[in-house]
Amino acid sequence: MKHYSERVLLTDLYEMTMLQAYFSRRMNDIAVFEFFVRQLPASRNFLMAAGLAQVLDYLHTLSFDEDDLRWLRESGQFDAAFIDSLKDLRFTGDVDALPEGTVFFADTPVLRITAPLREAQLIESRLMNLLHFQTLIASKAARCVIAAQGKQLVDFGLRRAHGAEAAVLSARAAYLAGFDGTATAVAAPLFEIPVFGTMAHSFVQAHDYETDAFANFAQTFPHNATLLIDTFDTEAAAQQVVRLAQWLGEEDNIHIKAVRIDSGDLEQAARRVRQILDAGGCQEIGIFVSGNLDENSLQSLVDNRAPIDGFGVGTHMNTSNDAPFLDCAYKLVAYAGQPCRKRSENKMPWPGAKQIFRQLDAHGSLHSDTLGMAQEQLAGQALLTPVVRDGQQCVASPSMVQMRRHAQAGLASLTPALRMLTPVPVYPVKISEGLCALAQQVDAHQQGLAQADRARWGFNVE
Amino acid sequence: MKHYSERVLLTDLYEMTMLQAYFSRRMNDIAVFEFFVRQLPASRNFLMAAGLAQVLDYLHTLSFDEDDLRWLRESGQFDAAFIDSLKDLRFTGDVDALPEGTVFFADTPVLRITAPLREAQLIESRLMNLLHFQTLIASKAARCVIAAQGKQLVDFGLRRAHGAEAAVLSARAAYLAGFDGTATAVAAPLFEIPVFGTMAHSFVQAHDYETDAFANFAQTFPHNATLLIDTFDTEAAAQQVVRLAQWLGEEDNIHIKAVRIDSGDLEQAARRVRQILDAGGCQEIGIFVSGNLDENSLQSLVDNRAPIDGFGVGTHMNTSNDAPFLDCAYKLVAYAGQPCRKRSENKMPWPGAKQIFRQLDAHGSLHSDTLGMAQEQLAGQALLTPVVRDGQQCVASPSMVQMRRHAQAGLASLTPALRMLTPVPVYPVKISEGLCALAQQVDAHQQGLAQADRARWGFNVE
Repeated sequence: MKHYSERVLLTDLYEMTMLQAYFSRRMNDIAVFEFFVRQLPASRNFLMAAGLAQVLDYLHTLSFDEDDLRWLRESGQFDAAFIDSLKDLRFTGDVDALPEGTVFFADTPVLRITAPLREAQLIESRLMNLLHFQTLIASKAARCVIAAQGKQLVDFGLRRAHGAEAAVLSARAAYLAGFDGTATAVAAPLFEIPVFGTMAHSFVQAHDYETDAFANFAQTFPHNATLLIDTFDTEAAAQQVVRLAQWLGEEDNIHIKAVRIDSGDLEQAARRVRQILDAGGCQEIGIFVSGNLDENSLQSLVDNRAPIDGFGVGTHMNTSNDAPFLDCAYKLVAYAGQPCRKRSENKMPWPGAKQIFRQLDAHGSLHSDTLGMAQEQLAGQALLTPVVRDGQQCVASPSMVQMRRHAQAGLASLTPALRMLTPVPVYPVKISEGLCALAQQVDAHQQGLAQADRARWGFNVE
Repeated sequence: MKHYSERVLLTDLYEMTMLQAYFSRRMNDIAVFEFFVRQLPASRNFLMAAGLAQVLDYLHTLSFDEDDLRWLRESGQFDAAFIDSLKDLRFTGDVDALPEGTVFFADTPVLRITAPLREAQLIESRLMNLLHFQTLIASKAARCVIAAQGKQLVDFGLRRAHGAEAAVLSARAAYLAGFDGTATAVAAPLFEIPVFGTMAHSFVQAHDYETDAFANFAQTFPHNATLLIDTFDTEAAAQQVVRLAQWLGEEDNIHIKAVRIDSGDLEQAARRVRQILDAGGCQEIGIFVSGNLDENSLQSLVDNRAPIDGFGVGTHMNTSNDAPFLDCAYKLVAYAGQPCRKRSENKMPWPGAKQIFRQLDAHGSLHSDTLGMAQEQLAGQALLTPVVRDGQQCVASPSMVQMRRHAQAGLASLTPALRMLTPVPVYPVKISEGLCALAQQVDAHQQGLAQADRARWGFNVE
């Protein structure tokens, strides 16, 4: 049996009830849905798109197997002809999307699905689940990358990530955004992400003597040992590392790579440890720190020139703790050739298939984004690109190296204000005249239909 | 190939590097580790244990397969004899744990592992990943259950949960804590959780007329239709539902079950819609609301007697957005018969294998929790119970019904103060005299070892 994360039933039940109702009325014209973020969290000046590769995998393998069909049958809510129709359901539509690593702003499409209504509807829940999470994490990780100013960054967050998929996909999103690697071992075979491993406090405690633990580890990994020195007394441990390093260097030609500090005032501790190591001739031993780090503490440590060579960033990044979700939506913007939009919200989404046109200035910095109709030709680069046509991928998947390069170029294109960790005025996305006109037409059209509907039911229509 | 979430390499690389170093020194005596939460988030007055069943599955199936071993070999960091030793590694130890649904407080063990060092160390990352997340969500969901005061609660959070596992395990944790079900379809075959499904705005929009969408849905689900009425104009839609209900009832004996409101001021909207429905003779049509709900908005809607019959609670619950992680740890508390503890933290954990002794008052309310040594016999009920002995489960797994009953009993045992949604003074957990004495002995012992270690390396020891 498939793992549940690969089952088509990993969806909201309402997708199935809607599909049944569409089937009952033979509704299956072409629908256009767009995924976008309505509003950025107050603590985000930009977002970074991620998760497209997993969405494409999902769409490519989408199908109901016998287990799924049996459950639908046994639930008693669906008719036999409908269930039968699902056997051959595959994703046969088009996908246009921002390449992973693209920076983007509120209310602009990250991904567009153009497909027969039932397919486009069915995929809503899992598509959102995949795109939302990696975009959330890439956006948080990008802030850490900006703050670290080139220092080593390693994802440490498996233990408090929200489950297995969150752990591996946050490792991927963070690496895409510019992290150097992850501590999560399985991310290496899955995504070819560099993995890093040191030791835990329990390792030190399982040895009678702290230095025995250090010696054991260094002898086991003669060129790659990072020793955790804050189990008992950080400075005393640093002093012992100095003597151990001399002894190991002379006896066995073993070189300790780094020490790690995981608690206390990291800046102060790093300064004292650096002093102890340098005074003992251990200039080549690096200092790695971890423990409740986020982009703000990274920035403060880097700005204060704390003598730190690398950072393990865990929980705060993998849960995006200051903004653990994005206000994202996957909305029908056209059906059977007719653009539409939901009207009851404070901020109404823009109708119809859309495109983002981005202009950079002479220095390669963001100059303007304009949201227009997909068929418009406006100045600037069209950011949404064709990825799938008629269910088949129509461009090669970029390598992780290419995605990382694209992400870095995106971060480099941000204005100094947008790169700030503190909130700055919202980046203004312009709306094309064509799209404004379309919205008016759509509203008038929908208003007319609503009045006709009320008239049919005998209500007075003004 | 196994799904990655079932692979032993879903672990921090450091577990593997530590295992290699333990192997090099032939260290594999019995270790005792405990999982606990150091401090409750400021917005939590209690926590609820969850995730044990998934931990037991994990331990039961723990093994390295050929893919895992090949990756370890190809990484070049591990020696052949060590990799060979992993082929037969299974979990052969003991587990003692709080039953799922138990309420608990800071600094007390939720789960204890007693096993050969390498096994107990290896499982750290994934065990934490599983226990942390479901405990986080059950604790958040329990607050929603308290706030809802018996009204229907349905998990709506798949789309913004942090990946697939977060989606299904948060559905499980919420159901365990007292939710009535989930919208995530696959949770039904996985955990036998009741699933609920209505319709999305796109469903309404895909029909020319809103009432056509309603009629289609009601005709497709004649006894179970919940109609989403806020796509265009909520009150106008409610009026149309009244006429539609009359017509469908007369023509086809179809009865609309409920309407759903997903935006705007839910209390006001519910009042107006209730008035419209009642005035139109549709007293039996329920009102279900959703949209950015959390325990605070639930409480306010229920306290204000908004005419609402059920709630869809999504993102805020599934991400535990006000506290998206717990400050949890999995710490070595004894090795080879010697209790130990980490000393460099502000708040030092208690050493040795421990037990929680809970006393209730005559009314069944929490009277006191005392943290003692595992071998002590103190007044009250011992909360950690034996679950696994020598790698084999030694008690039957409770059914979901039993766990839900246990969770409700736990919530009922909370004092009125602890049931408040706002922060109240921390529930005081007493420490037994025996445990205090042990901590002193352990500190003296570890101090002695540290001094001996420093003396070995030629430092002056006072």
